[in-house]
Amino acid sequence: MPPPIITLTTDFGTADSFVGTMKGVILSIAPDAQIVDLTHEIPPQDVQAGAFAVASAYPYFPAGTIHVIVVDPGVGTQRLPIAVATGSTTFVCPDNGLLSRALDQNGARVGGVPFVMDRTALPDTWHAVRLTNADYWHQPLSTTFHGRDIFAPVAAHLASGAPIESMGVRITNLVAFAVPQPTSVSGTSIGQVLHVDRFGNLTTNLRSSDLPQGQIEIHVGGKAIAGLSETYQDGGDLIALIGSGGTLEIAVRNGDASRALHSTVGAEVHVISRS
Amino acid sequence: MPPPIITLTTDFGTADSFVGTMKGVILSIAPDAQIVDLTHEIPPQDVQAGAFAVASAYPYFPAGTIHVIVVDPGVGTQRLPIAVATGSTTFVCPDNGLLSRALDQNGARVGGVPFVMDRTALPDTWHAVRLTNADYWHQPLSTTFHGRDIFAPVAAHLASGAPIESMGVRITNLVAFAVPQPTSVSGTSIGQVLHVDRFGNLTTNLRSSDLPQGQIEIHVGGKAIAGLSETYQDGGDLIALIGSGGTLEIAVRNGDASRALHSTVGAEVHVISRS
Amino acid sequence: MPPPIITLTTDFGTADSFVGTMKGVILSIAPDAQIVDLTHEIPPQDVQAGAFAVASAYPYFPAGTIHVIVVDPGVGTQRLPIAVATGSTTFVCPDNGLLSRALDQNGARVGGVPFVMDRTALPDTWHAVRLTNADYWHQPLSTTFHGRDIFAPVAAHLASGAPIESMGVRITNLVAFAVPQPTSVSGTSIGQVLHVDRFGNLTTNLRSSDLPQGQIEIHVGGKAIAGLSETYQDGGDLIALIGSGGTLEIAVRNGDASRALHSTVGAEVHVISRS
Repeated sequence: MPPPIITLTTDFGTADSFVGTMKGVILSIAPDAQIVDLTHEIPPQDVQAGAFAVASAYPYFPAGTIHVIVVDPGVGTQRLPIAVATGSTTFVCPDNGLLSRALDQNGARVGGVPFVMDRTALPDTWHAVRLTNADYWHQPLSTTFHGRDIFAPVAAHLASGAPIESMGVRITNLVAFAVPQPTSVSGTSIGQVLHVDRFGNLTTNLRSSDLPQGQIEIHVGGKAIAGLSETYQDGGDLIALIGSGGTLEIAVRNGDASRALHSTVGAEVHVISRS
Repeated sequence: MPPPIITLTTDFGTADSFVGTMKGVILSIAPDAQIVDLTHEIPPQDVQAGAFAVASAYPYFPAGTIHVIVVDPGVGTQRLPIAVATGSTTFVCPDNGLLSRALDQNGARVGGVPFVMDRTALPDTWHAVRLTNADYWHQPLSTTFHGRDIFAPVAAHLASGAPIESMGVRITNLVAFAVPQPTSVSGTSIGQVLHVDRFGNLTTNLRSSDLPQGQIEIHVGGKAIAGLSETYQDGGDLIALIGSGGTLEIAVRNGDASRALHSTVGAEVHVISRS
Repeated sequence: MPPPIITLTTDFGTADSFVGTMKGVILSIAPDAQIVDLTHEIPPQDVQAGAFAVASAYPYFPAGTIHVIVVDPGVGTQRLPIAVATGSTTFVCPDNGLLSRALDQNGARVGGVPFVMDRTALPDTWHAVRLTNADYWHQPLSTTFHGRDIFAPVAAHLASGAPIESMGVRITNLVAFAVPQPTSVSGTSIGQVLHVDRFGNLTTNLRSSDLPQGQIEIHVGGKAIAGLSETYQDGGDLIALIGSGGTLEIAVRNGDASRALHSTVGAEVHVISRS
């Protein structure tokens, strides 16, 4: 049996010992666990950035991996702690929108205004519970550090074989924000910037199949880019390419596209046909 | 047998390969070790911050865990490298005050001026040695990187079953700084800020049991806070609550209390009764 | 059998989930792997800093360790992905100079202008291949994230026992930059700064054996330092000592030598005899 894998994504940073404390709790319950840090540099309380980070990485982990996500502005309030099993992956996190992009990838669509929270039904094959069984928690329960007291120990018990059904009451919908969807108007594809990475590259929601056929021109931040590059070294200083996530990405060679274009998450990108 | 756990706490940062080098040394001796980073962002040479980080996290690790702490302004000088076994936990570090808070938690009291170093007797149940047996060190021994040459290999040999008695000469007291203790004057509880976390929250040394009964008012940085909140979302912008370590914490909702109150480690906090 | 060790060195930072994604790919293939982060804070596209980080750390890892290095400004272009086995260590990286210092440590000398790239012959005992066998890659192959699609899965397959010969076509030379070598002119030893660490300490290429005998004076950044110190606490504010890598290091006690001396990588250091 390979060791169980638990990943951690938080906004705790790495200067304090919060993350180390969570790992201590996990290893007390599941001493063989492979613990992987996805990132602890989610901007404080930025649920959308947390949702993006997890959705980008989880498809690359083996079946059975448990992902703990703690970006939790409402810790200790009415928001619910949850565990969600998709069949191959389990998420443990607060029910505050952190799974929006994972839901979106699996065909659950939240209507309404992009980035605004609403409730959305789970895909049929997912099994979600509200975490209510305190037997699986660290005691005493604090009101401010559920990463240590609920999410870490629940993940470790799941990794050790405890069934998700025993963790709490089944739920059939989650809080999620409406992930913006690409549209097409008169042959122009319109998408949005979903993420800015550490290099300043802008990741959008436009897949290859969303783009017009033939020669294209990409408009973003008041600039136009002619055609797609194959690599970061190909084309001019400002380039567009299909990034490693399969969607249109805007980059500045050896530079920072976000800064150069004064564009960040939510910015519109238009792709027009030049044919 | 679960794999042995070794945690690392340093001021080395993560930009250089110092920490990776220590892990290479550990895995050369104890290839199955679970190595956990507590933090490598202790401010350079800040022994008190190192002492706080370790004392906050180590109680959450399973029995048998070995904690390596390298915040070592005196590396290569007269200060002694030590290993200290408490019965359930082992620390490996320089004898420069890094275990002050762990000692304080275990009832060893250093008298005198808070934050000033002195020698303090160990609790009876602890076993400490000055590391003198070079058979357990990495050779050649440098004068500037005992993390690699002494602390990492000693921890790895302990993890592999070598007895602490074989590592060196027994000692019965350690260098420690006087951890400030809460006091009570005419019904007012007086405590100190012990730590500022990455969110700017101020952690104090005042436990619930140190606070006046009934309605209270907290004074810090020239401001007054009425009563305790339950969560970070409860109450006004400036709030006080019992934090995840069980002590009074001052926070600004979605903000930075340290900056707002111009208060940092050592600042006094007064709690008065309003009943 | 101890678990296989794979280290990661990149310029990806830790804010995005790039590194976590690579770990997911590795664990999908080699679930028992011990994955160690050397550093992910190589300055973007700084091949020389990547070469220094790896060369500093790899000798401290046990035989059989696999080091993945992804500092890859040319990702997706003509530069080749390679795997290089030295007998005790395997490197997996782009062929862009990242192994220059490891080559230099093993006696392969690149002539010409320091820091300028050229091709250099491998030591006889090394076995290198250009990675061409896509069976060992993650599919679909992106043009911008070979860390995820080529280097991580190749390392994981090597860790799982796949022979390097099966990964691609053998090559006998690598791209490398000329590592500056110390020289001696009229009794003065002349070296170069190779690295600035997080404390601002300047690491040079001058070994003890390169220095003049007897009393010496070190000149760097317009200042003179009389003699060598034993530790960081020994001597004046500006000190020189033999660092943990065995070479001359310039430091400012409790300060930043790089800033104080306006000196960085490439700066000349002269050591003259005072006897």
